[in-house]
Amino acid sequence: MRRAFRKQALPLDRVRRYLEPGPIVLVSSTWQGERNIMTMGWHTCMEFTPSLVGCIISSANHTFELVRASGECVINVPTTALTDEVVGIGNCHGGEIDKFERFGLTPEKAQKVGAPLIGECCAHFECRLADDTLVDRYNFFVWVVVAARAAVSPKHPETLHYTDDGVFMVSGRIISRRRLFRPEMLE
Amino acid sequence: MRRAFRKQALPLDRVRRYLEPGPIVLVSSTWQGERNIMTMGWHTCMEFTPSLVGCIISSANHTFELVRASGECVINVPTTALTDEVVGIGNCHGGEIDKFERFGLTPEKAQKVGAPLIGECCAHFECRLADDTLVDRYNFFVWVVVAARAAVSPKHPETLHYTDDGVFMVSGRIISRRRLFRPEMLE
Repeated sequence: MRRAFRKQALPLDRVRRYLEPGPIVLVSSTWQGERNIMTMGWHTCMEFTPSLVGCIISSANHTFELVRASGECVINVPTTALTDEVVGIGNCHGGEIDKFERFGLTPEKAQKVGAPLIGECCAHFECRLADDTLVDRYNFFVWVVVAARAAVSPKHPETLHYTDDGVFMVSGRIISRRRLFRPEMLE
Repeated sequence: MRRAFRKQALPLDRVRRYLEPGPIVLVSSTWQGERNIMTMGWHTCMEFTPSLVGCIISSANHTFELVRASGECVINVPTTALTDEVVGIGNCHGGEIDKFERFGLTPEKAQKVGAPLIGECCAHFECRLADDTLVDRYNFFVWVVVAARAAVSPKHPETLHYTDDGVFMVSGRIISRRRLFRPEMLE
């Protein structure tokens, strides 16, 4: 069931906490009065500071045009409460419909980019295009996260991790090895 | 507990099934008699055919030198049975020790690359360097998968998804929306 999250700002170097586990995300974008949402699973963290994220946005997607023109997007993390929306959004083309309206999602004003946040998601990463070197060759965009917000609780929201053929794995249980954590080995 | 998996060849365009969910992986590599293993969480699928995978391998890692020189690696997927090995491998430097020996892991001969597979993992993707355009700037390697093997069962092995501070999420439960799956929307 959908719920409202109370959110707070997240330090930019902690974005990895939400993206490194590999959840399906919803990319929101806007350009010249048009807006769109895309379901996306091909992304990776690239750097802590600046906070860089790389992702594939196929040129066959309407979102490609909007982010190419605006140089901005928001990466939103949906929970399992939005499973049907995640699938539905992946199954229809923007440009023909407004996906916020079609799926009853709430556009919220971002802090630093023009693209809207998706209110029902548990975390939001506002992105500006940092490097388009590999866009023509692979549709690979490098983004710098310029603002981040995430739900205060739950600490580890239940996220969707896509396999194929319409099947998601769900992250649930936590394993902590915090006692063995050696932050100096990160770099 | 560790177990032996019976594995079979995987069509190269199905690699995404194992990597898109975002598991922590173990990268094995070799060059001039030296070999190493690295724990890695920053990777993304980039294309179905050819089967492309992008990942960050920091130049501070010994693995960076081995893959830069050899132009090859194997991406291995560990299950939760290898949690302590995943953490331990991330906590020590190759070059000083042999991580296969230190962690009691079995090197197995790959089919198409020189780097060894890690026998205890549930899936293996043999990779050749496809594009090093962004290596100098971001340590970002684009690999083409040239051979793939995966466990016959379980169908959805329990994998580790790193957050931060030594805490992993574990993929477990499955949600299927197969009835809604529209393969024609993939491209």
